[in-house]
Amino acid sequence: MDKKKILGIPSIKRLPTYLNLIRQAQEEGYEFISGTVIAQELQVEPIQVRKDLAITGIIGKPKKGYPIVPLIAAIEHYLSWDNTKNAIIVGAGNLATALIGYPGFQSHGLNFVAAFDNDESKIGTYIHGVPVFSMNTLNEQVKNLDVTIAVLTVPSQYAQVTANRVIRAGIKAIWNFTNEKLNLPQEIVSQQEDLTSGYALLCVKMDAQKPKLVKE
Amino acid sequence: MDKKKILGIPSIKRLPTYLNLIRQAQEEGYEFISGTVIAQELQVEPIQVRKDLAITGIIGKPKKGYPIVPLIAAIEHYLSWDNTKNAIIVGAGNLATALIGYPGFQSHGLNFVAAFDNDESKIGTYIHGVPVFSMNTLNEQVKNLDVTIAVLTVPSQYAQVTANRVIRAGIKAIWNFTNEKLNLPQEIVSQQEDLTSGYALLCVKMDAQKPKLVKE
Repeated sequence: MDKKKILGIPSIKRLPTYLNLIRQAQEEGYEFISGTVIAQELQVEPIQVRKDLAITGIIGKPKKGYPIVPLIAAIEHYLSWDNTKNAIIVGAGNLATALIGYPGFQSHGLNFVAAFDNDESKIGTYIHGVPVFSMNTLNEQVKNLDVTIAVLTVPSQYAQVTANRVIRAGIKAIWNFTNEKLNLPQEIVSQQEDLTSGYALLCVKMDAQKPKLVKE
Repeated sequence: MDKKKILGIPSIKRLPTYLNLIRQAQEEGYEFISGTVIAQELQVEPIQVRKDLAITGIIGKPKKGYPIVPLIAAIEHYLSWDNTKNAIIVGAGNLATALIGYPGFQSHGLNFVAAFDNDESKIGTYIHGVPVFSMNTLNEQVKNLDVTIAVLTVPSQYAQVTANRVIRAGIKAIWNFTNEKLNLPQEIVSQQEDLTSGYALLCVKMDAQKPKLVKE
């Protein structure tokens, strides 16, 4: 039934940006938002916005645009953000603290239930209310807490061994913030974040700025 | 002269991933790497890898692949990662600490020279050796330290006002880790990181996993 069409990766990655903007418009009291406005605000081609949003099944009205309330619901449904998912985070350092405290994850259904570390001084403490457990308790905690996602924020050299451990504990999806490309069984879903990708883009834009600024 | 061809955004974002893999191959003692291997390892289409790497001007040899040493140099040159860029980070919280400590930025020419915050308890401390200054000293520090990039890790509601301040101080490029879409003068280069984009992709993959797993 509910068979979703699959968008391309860049389109999926744009959806949260659309969602942010559409929510902002909602807070400002708007009931409709046009594809053209979204395109202008986010510097995307209007045709691209229309293609991306077609996946939601929400039809824009001529001269008014998309109705905001159902559009938000449809994007959230497409992303499964209307379902809460329990997650653990492994490696209770600064990045973990930043991610657990990142506003927005909670409202997108990402619910951090536990953090794990080997550092004795961290075990037993809390990060934004999330308890830090010893790695030795991983298996029982994953079972008890009904966790599907593991976020990896360990140093890169421990990424693979940590991935192996969380998979043995029953984790089905890995969000990998390390530099390490992981070897994972086919049935495990994963997403690697590369913080240097955005930096690459910034650098190329800075470089492009030098010879010619004018967009015509 | 040295007029670089401009790749599409997804291609540019893939370059750091290629670079990681190619460096890994180098560490393992390889002198050549084939486009096919890169494609397999990173689950990208081989034709896409060849297109992306064509930008470097490095020609692969039949049966051997690309020579690793010049390929690394060419990617780094394309990304301007062979030039050191001084950066400040504004908002000296956990995300700032994670970014300053992120291995790889330094080797990509990103040199954090100062952090800024309004929190008296942070001013005068150091984050991984980088001093934290008061926001009141922003203008003089940016001038003294020859800074071009500002990384914004302030809470989203302060993003725009912070952007305005760093631009007034002489910053030319903004790497924005907040949720806030910034209004910036045309001559300012910016890149917004949305940590929820990767999460969106993970969620869609998890969802796609449910009905049908088989890739044929």
